[in-house]
Amino acid sequence: MMLKEIAEKISKAGKIAILPHISADGDALGSCLALGLALRKAGKDVAVFSEEEVPAVYGFLPGLDMLKVYKSGGCEAEETVSGCKSGKDECSMDIMPFDLVIALDTGDMDRLGKRAALFNSTENTVNIDHHTTNTEFAAINYVDVHASAVGEIIYRLVEIMGISLDRDISTCLYVAISTDTGGFRYSNTTSDTHRIAANLVDRGIDVAAISQRVFDSTSLPKVRLMGEVINSLELLQDGKVAFCAVTREMLEKSGAKEEDCDGLVNIGRNIEGVEVSVLLKQLDHKLVKANLRSKEYVDVAAIANIFNGGGHKRAAGFTFEGQIDDIKNRILDKIGEVLK
Amino acid sequence: MMLKEIAEKISKAGKIAILPHISADGDALGSCLALGLALRKAGKDVAVFSEEEVPAVYGFLPGLDMLKVYKSGGCEAEETVSGCKSGKDECSMDIMPFDLVIALDTGDMDRLGKRAALFNSTENTVNIDHHTTNTEFAAINYVDVHASAVGEIIYRLVEIMGISLDRDISTCLYVAISTDTGGFRYSNTTSDTHRIAANLVDRGIDVAAISQRVFDSTSLPKVRLMGEVINSLELLQDGKVAFCAVTREMLEKSGAKEEDCDGLVNIGRNIEGVEVSVLLKQLDHKLVKANLRSKEYVDVAAIANIFNGGGHKRAAGFTFEGQIDDIKNRILDKIGEVLK
Ligand SMILES: [Mn+2]
Ligand SMILES: [Mn+2]
Repeated sequence: MMLKEIAEKISKAGKIAILPHISADGDALGSCLALGLALRKAGKDVAVFSEEEVPAVYGFLPGLDMLKVYKSGGCEAEETVSGCKSGKDECSMDIMPFDLVIALDTGDMDRLGKRAALFNSTENTVNIDHHTTNTEFAAINYVDVHASAVGEIIYRLVEIMGISLDRDISTCLYVAISTDTGGFRYSNTTSDTHRIAANLVDRGIDVAAISQRVFDSTSLPKVRLMGEVINSLELLQDGKVAFCAVTREMLEKSGAKEEDCDGLVNIGRNIEGVEVSVLLKQLDHKLVKANLRSKEYVDVAAIANIFNGGGHKRAAGFTFEGQIDDIKNRILDKIGEVLK
Repeated sequence: MMLKEIAEKISKAGKIAILPHISADGDALGSCLALGLALRKAGKDVAVFSEEEVPAVYGFLPGLDMLKVYKSGGCEAEETVSGCKSGKDECSMDIMPFDLVIALDTGDMDRLGKRAALFNSTENTVNIDHHTTNTEFAAINYVDVHASAVGEIIYRLVEIMGISLDRDISTCLYVAISTDTGGFRYSNTTSDTHRIAANLVDRGIDVAAISQRVFDSTSLPKVRLMGEVINSLELLQDGKVAFCAVTREMLEKSGAKEEDCDGLVNIGRNIEGVEVSVLLKQLDHKLVKANLRSKEYVDVAAIANIFNGGGHKRAAGFTFEGQIDDIKNRILDKIGEVLK
């Protein structure tokens, strides 16, 4: 399937729905809004349906007036962004049917959640993605696993359709690409990624303001939790192993949520001389989740396997029934054996 | 002055010294090593002289064998990088004279420190920079204030000289450009910056490994200090003001150095809803340094001015004789007046 064929399919449709995956991230939202803005410029009637409210960090994205939070049997136009009202004041089942439904950044139907019903309301379905695991669940599928972000694919699609890039579309695409590449830092960053970014910058986007919002914003509970985790930090085994814990008490004290733990294991990993970082998170009174990261040579997936977990060489994990103190020394012993 | 004339000047020289500014950063070091590697490829005899040891974080840069720490009356080949030995085993005054001395990323002669003597040892001097404040202190000056980094200028110079970019030169240039743009996030990032980055990525550089080393490496004392600062964090005035302190006790307890305080004021600034972040640092038993940052509308330079300090609208500071508790409420009162 070529992007040109998708462009043709779109040109024949009047009413188009665009869907990001559940728990939509920067790439999913940025790509959907960029495509939505472009299609609106081309005279299409466009709606973007998300599974849940847009995270506040993306509340500045242009085109959010097109976005509605989908509810089974309809959708909810109120408060699509935490604290912001959607531009449309009403929305219900009568917005269906759509001539075309396009899923973006979505590996399989499960990632559409309740919106699978909307997706299946027409036979004209398109799936544009970059995940190697994509199940090609639509009538037309375009999966480019070399694209750093779906935003790169949408950039090309908009170009093929002859719709001129403006500042708003460019802002959405920049958010899509910069978030999925960790700010051009991950190994998925290619020279094409930078060439596209160059063209987006040429449309007058505010790189500094976008970056500040997307990469630097945090919350007080998150900062407090980070403080607690640093207080628990221990360097062991000649400084090659970093150990941190997150207890229920720490979560309560800081007011942080489960998802605020994302990335905390990197505090230990980023310390000079550390090869393996372990974060143990108390899930409830009898379950502990272990996150393992390594820097250069330790295969943490092999260690996670011992405890019936899994993952990649440099990032793995497992869940354990018991208390943090029960599992701590057992993991440290296994890591010690590998480091010897 | 055109880069072409500098290329011609270089082509006529045999023995060339390249100098970064004192406290050399990623742009200074990356640019010097990139130019050094390129000139070596063109058959030149090249040495890079730094004022002090290269920070460990840049210890992976290609071309460090060309680098020597300059000592008055000679230079020191031992341990140019913390923990690493330089490639050259000897170095003294007899390496002079040079046919040409090139200063990079250096705004004025003061930024050459002791190496001003070396710079003045010849009349053939070149100054390539991007600081608006550059004093044009050399025989030939090339100052491009639109370049995000001197690395961008060196990229062009190498191109003009017809020296092919290889992986090592590209790695040095990438470090120069990515550090001076905060990883393509600051407002100095242009479309040219991204286009150059694209060409560097095409030379096979390891973006993920470089980024991990340059942006994510930290030290245990730095992490511990961050923990202490978070413990001291207070949100005031309806969450619009963040306040943090660094006492001598905190520095001692964490084992951190003065420079480890860099950026700590951003912890408060990055919290949602915060407009002004204040970090008070105890310099000694009677001096306190205040760092002020704002996000969107408060002019912190105006507040710093009240206390005989200065800076920019979004980043300012001042020094105060007294204790943290003496100055804290006075600053908060002034900020409160502006926020009203
Ligand atoms: Mn994606
Ligand atoms: Mn610079």
